[in-house]
Amino acid sequence: MSDTLAPGAIIGILGGGQLGRMLAVAASRLGLRTHVYEPGADAPAADVAYRVTTAPFEDTAALGAFARSVDVVTYEFENVPTAALDLIESIRPIRPGRNALATSQDRLTEKQFLQRLGLKTAPFFAVASRADLDAALAAIGTPAILKTRRMGYDGKGQVRIMVPADADAAFAALAGAPSILEGFVPFAHEASVIGARGLDGSVAAYDPGENVHDSGILRTTTVPARLSAAERTDAVLIAARVLNALNYVGVIGVELFVTPYGLIVNEFAPRVHNSGHWTQNGCVIDQFEQHIRAIAGWPLGDGSRHSNVVMENLIGNDMDRVPALAAVGAALHLYGKREVKAGRKMGHANRITGPAH
Amino acid sequence: MSDTLAPGAIIGILGGGQLGRMLAVAASRLGLRTHVYEPGADAPAADVAYRVTTAPFEDTAALGAFARSVDVVTYEFENVPTAALDLIESIRPIRPGRNALATSQDRLTEKQFLQRLGLKTAPFFAVASRADLDAALAAIGTPAILKTRRMGYDGKGQVRIMVPADADAAFAALAGAPSILEGFVPFAHEASVIGARGLDGSVAAYDPGENVHDSGILRTTTVPARLSAAERTDAVLIAARVLNALNYVGVIGVELFVTPYGLIVNEFAPRVHNSGHWTQNGCVIDQFEQHIRAIAGWPLGDGSRHSNVVMENLIGNDMDRVPALAAVGAALHLYGKREVKAGRKMGHANRITGPAH
Repeated sequence: MSDTLAPGAIIGILGGGQLGRMLAVAASRLGLRTHVYEPGADAPAADVAYRVTTAPFEDTAALGAFARSVDVVTYEFENVPTAALDLIESIRPIRPGRNALATSQDRLTEKQFLQRLGLKTAPFFAVASRADLDAALAAIGTPAILKTRRMGYDGKGQVRIMVPADADAAFAALAGAPSILEGFVPFAHEASVIGARGLDGSVAAYDPGENVHDSGILRTTTVPARLSAAERTDAVLIAARVLNALNYVGVIGVELFVTPYGLIVNEFAPRVHNSGHWTQNGCVIDQFEQHIRAIAGWPLGDGSRHSNVVMENLIGNDMDRVPALAAVGAALHLYGKREVKAGRKMGHANRITGPAH
Repeated sequence: MSDTLAPGAIIGILGGGQLGRMLAVAASRLGLRTHVYEPGADAPAADVAYRVTTAPFEDTAALGAFARSVDVVTYEFENVPTAALDLIESIRPIRPGRNALATSQDRLTEKQFLQRLGLKTAPFFAVASRADLDAALAAIGTPAILKTRRMGYDGKGQVRIMVPADADAAFAALAGAPSILEGFVPFAHEASVIGARGLDGSVAAYDPGENVHDSGILRTTTVPARLSAAERTDAVLIAARVLNALNYVGVIGVELFVTPYGLIVNEFAPRVHNSGHWTQNGCVIDQFEQHIRAIAGWPLGDGSRHSNVVMENLIGNDMDRVPALAAVGAALHLYGKREVKAGRKMGHANRITGPAH
């Protein structure tokens, strides 16, 4: 284990949300400490971090002090400003690397990257103008979906075009932001695979999960997913291809559409992923520890799973169901967010449904 | 769930060792925060606590501020000074309650309590003087073991008397501290049961584990233990009897000797217990979360277990084996202690050995 962090080392985490919170807990299991950098107050990760810096990403003095105080830097969300990353990278390594971020931050770049790897995606066209949109609609047809190239998450920054007459409203809704038009994929269901790549280039993956979304937000992930053995293998190979192409270090979440003509890659996230939360109660080494192991240069877990699990997100007023979920012995993972808001991810519950099969 | 802590509430923990560390992590899963009170610097629990007070137990101002800042107080070790507990209890509830502490802090009181409940213990006599020791030895015979009534843990504060001629040296070794002489129990093996009692009086228990000690320190716990169905039931009933008699709230660890003539109670600890660490990877709700659920007034988990587990303590230089253990996918739980010392518990490793049977 050369180039590895020893117990006591400090991992810097950009972003203090629930993913940072669960990364901090996983780091603690390996005897590692965490320093969370988060612009907002009352960050969920702050409750369990060794150290917290509350400062904007534009505060170069705070960023520099943060970087010097840690041994390696990772991030729990993709939209960290480039200038902040440049400054940090001049002081400490960032894992996963900048190319993974740059690729995934832009839907056009991401889709082109996936195509170059020979992976299937939805048909897409870049849209920089109203005329581009007309041309794209003519090529793809309707229904289609217009998405901003940057800053989209949880269904935000995208609008459906069901008939050509919707084009004006859709274009106006995104306020002229650089976008792509994607064709609809008629899929049987959605799945995702959580992969990981170590500092030594080793690759591991968890069994794919089956995802149900509602209004663009993940509701449930069920493991095992309804997939043939061939599809299961394909999912893992897709993750491995992306990981290796990016010379990636850490955990990645790859979203897939399951179709009669094979798996189609929707997008990937260069971080631990909501659809991998089931691993906390289905595996000995969960996705959060897997990510920490990777960026700390430790050996990866092999992704083995002891149980079947249904993960359910607790969103907004779902928090009212916590007493009932606690009473039936569900594994609760609450994020400590001070205020319940509609559409806000407040926690999740994992239910073991039986031994792995 | 009346009288329960809501997410965001703060649990005070007296003691900042590894048990406090893992309690803090469990609390975070339920959206609760922790405030750790610990006299020593670099406390393992401080890495993952929301707040830390570093002050001696004699600092009444610090103790008062600590108590007022939290919603309920628990402890991770039994030897908190009585005056500190008195002060805290005047401000906030302490769970488990003072009677559990008072009973378990004194080996004589504890043994008498167990006897009153009709539970089997090793034969014992109080030893306050050299003459008491002679009388006790005459009654019990040798081999026997002389133990201080207070402050014993991990084999400290006890000395074996193999033949009557050892009596002088044994008495001198304990420097005249109030003690008890215990007869040796010829046992097949050691087991323990981790029980819990909720604020509503409900009781739950995990499957008993089988323990191997070396020089008074726990080395491994294996689940399931080699016990008959009747012994398994007895173990749970013993835990329940102790819990109910103490009107207990929280997790308790009860150590047992397995003998041909039934289970003999060695001692109990009014807290999460080293022999319950296997629950972190064998159960959906582990002993740390179970303790937090109990003291927070939440429903208890039912103790169900999905896997067979072998827990191994990593003591002193066992830390050199961490890279090898990480490479074979063991679940590591390291305590973040800055310095490796001989005999010091540095972490533990859980290996799943198969589905529960």
